[in-house]
Amino acid sequence: MSQDEYFMSICLDLAQKAAGQTAPNPLVGAVIVADGEIVGRGHHERAGLPHAEPNALVAAAERAKGATLYVNLEPCSHYGRTPPCADAVIAAGIKRVVVGVQDSNVKVNGGGIARLREAGIDVTVGVLADQCRYLNRGFFRVMECGLPWVELKMACTLDGRIADQSGRSRYITAAAALERVQKLRRECDAIMVGAATARLDDPSLTVRDGLPISRQPRRVVVDPHLTLDEKAKIFDGQSDTFIFSLPSATGIKPDKAEFMPLKIREDGGYDLKDCLATLAAKGVRRLLVEGGGVLAGALLDANLVDQIYWFMAPKMLVSSGSRPVLASDKGRSLDDIVELEEVRYEEVLPDLLVTGYCKGRKQFLEQPLLKS
Amino acid sequence: MSQDEYFMSICLDLAQKAAGQTAPNPLVGAVIVADGEIVGRGHHERAGLPHAEPNALVAAAERAKGATLYVNLEPCSHYGRTPPCADAVIAAGIKRVVVGVQDSNVKVNGGGIARLREAGIDVTVGVLADQCRYLNRGFFRVMECGLPWVELKMACTLDGRIADQSGRSRYITAAAALERVQKLRRECDAIMVGAATARLDDPSLTVRDGLPISRQPRRVVVDPHLTLDEKAKIFDGQSDTFIFSLPSATGIKPDKAEFMPLKIREDGGYDLKDCLATLAAKGVRRLLVEGGGVLAGALLDANLVDQIYWFMAPKMLVSSGSRPVLASDKGRSLDDIVELEEVRYEEVLPDLLVTGYCKGRKQFLEQPLLKS
Repeated sequence: MSQDEYFMSICLDLAQKAAGQTAPNPLVGAVIVADGEIVGRGHHERAGLPHAEPNALVAAAERAKGATLYVNLEPCSHYGRTPPCADAVIAAGIKRVVVGVQDSNVKVNGGGIARLREAGIDVTVGVLADQCRYLNRGFFRVMECGLPWVELKMACTLDGRIADQSGRSRYITAAAALERVQKLRRECDAIMVGAATARLDDPSLTVRDGLPISRQPRRVVVDPHLTLDEKAKIFDGQSDTFIFSLPSATGIKPDKAEFMPLKIREDGGYDLKDCLATLAAKGVRRLLVEGGGVLAGALLDANLVDQIYWFMAPKMLVSSGSRPVLASDKGRSLDDIVELEEVRYEEVLPDLLVTGYCKGRKQFLEQPLLKS
Repeated sequence: MSQDEYFMSICLDLAQKAAGQTAPNPLVGAVIVADGEIVGRGHHERAGLPHAEPNALVAAAERAKGATLYVNLEPCSHYGRTPPCADAVIAAGIKRVVVGVQDSNVKVNGGGIARLREAGIDVTVGVLADQCRYLNRGFFRVMECGLPWVELKMACTLDGRIADQSGRSRYITAAAALERVQKLRRECDAIMVGAATARLDDPSLTVRDGLPISRQPRRVVVDPHLTLDEKAKIFDGQSDTFIFSLPSATGIKPDKAEFMPLKIREDGGYDLKDCLATLAAKGVRRLLVEGGGVLAGALLDANLVDQIYWFMAPKMLVSSGSRPVLASDKGRSLDDIVELEEVRYEEVLPDLLVTGYCKGRKQFLEQPLLKS
């Protein structure tokens, strides 16, 4: 690991501290290094609060003059809720800036780097670039595609069942897997489930890992026919709740949720892509989908899933009447099977976790950068 | 590892050489040790050929006098196709015998050990006993319960599917998993599949690992209505084929197979336990079941499966029309889910192998021995 990579990895660690808390903004960490020593650190904590660079500059104070700034994302060059970071960097007398990746936000998109260079600052771009893109995969996905980064988490038996025939699913996987799910929830901006899961499990879809949290993920239910009970936990006001339903649905609409239209595609299916675009516009960058099988199947069929977290318990439900982990009426042959890439098997004892990316999605993370 | 354990482990290695070749006899290896040095080795190669002990005694010749014999299974005390090994051990002047486990065969069952002791030989019983029972789990299961040891091997996607909706299953798992299946086949005495799998896959159910083999496993199909084509590979004469069918079935009965009656239980299901007992009587000790989902589900429902080899490919078939890895009309709730014990997760890249025992079956292997 080079010195640049070492300091960039510290930026990534700093940025990660605020995972799940900064949307719609990206996760950013910055360190200022003078004579090989870190003289200032900062990270972006929440939208509306200062960016990472000014935080680090404040910490470094006079020692920023002539120093090197490391930051995982290109400094901004536009006025948002805070002034442009590039200007602050120039004003502080920074001599060199090392940027992880260029910002895909159309308002930045190389503009920050250009402004720094115009001011005579030596700028290096593309250090630990893959990791920098991975950290902000939700942000980049929205900036570049208009859709959130979708992570599908399922928990099933070896025979691919998520609930018995009466709908009971608690708990197929054990404590360690449930703890791991809490970590996933903490990092995402919203959690989505299907209507059957919301009805049968009545989940609160909140982070309950015992650590302080400044913002709970939003909760999303695709409930075409408005079948949820007003006493459902997702209507408890603990966090924003969005319900996607058909305009024709006549069920109840509790005050504590926001109701959004679920559109129908030309082929007759629900337009989940439109739901995702709506969520992106609402500021959701990373979306965690927690089932059930029908919603997961529909998202996979629509090619909308990026990353997979597949928990498996060493058990078998056997019964054909139990609920399958994935359900879909779309005929699919071995030729168009959904393949995963970068697969990792990890013991989360007594259960197993399989992680990976839907084919082609990893490529998005590794997309060549404009080396400017 | 003690010295006794060390030499016993060599017996196990020797015995294992003939895995799949000795049924109805057990796997047995023997070493003769004089002054801490191995002076004779032997193993049982095939039913009808000499047992391990005489092979080792022949190899040791005069050096057997006053030496210690290690053998993973109690020496026999009865006349079968060969004379009693206990007598040969006594005649050779062996001073001490170390036995892995007592033989459960009613014709032996401690008789061999008793005869050795009567002759003044120092006998130690119960060294690496669990491993010795595991090695011959098929033999012990038949001797003690009248049923073969049943190993269920399935290969499915993460969502628990074994074939697409057209029935295509080749190949969900990759080369390494297929090679591993060849090893499983080599160790078993018979391979069983259901009728649909036999029809759709037309498997030959033979060992094709490129190594010499003196006896192919027998092939068993549960085909209630005699639906197989006479050109099916299992009728190719490469090995014995047994077909279990209903007496009322009117399909074809090719010469190259043996047809056996499939009975109906009082509850209306097929009496698979009776099929297994029939196979045990035919000399089958370890039975490998390779699907499909209906047969596997029925065996699990009847509590007839001992050991599981579950190969999973990092893929998803999604479609509800694809074939589930386990199918059963028996209602089952989370309370009577099939749990596995001694679960191991092993990468057989790109696939995963989950192994374990159906609950309670491991206990059979660890059953306390008569320490005599």
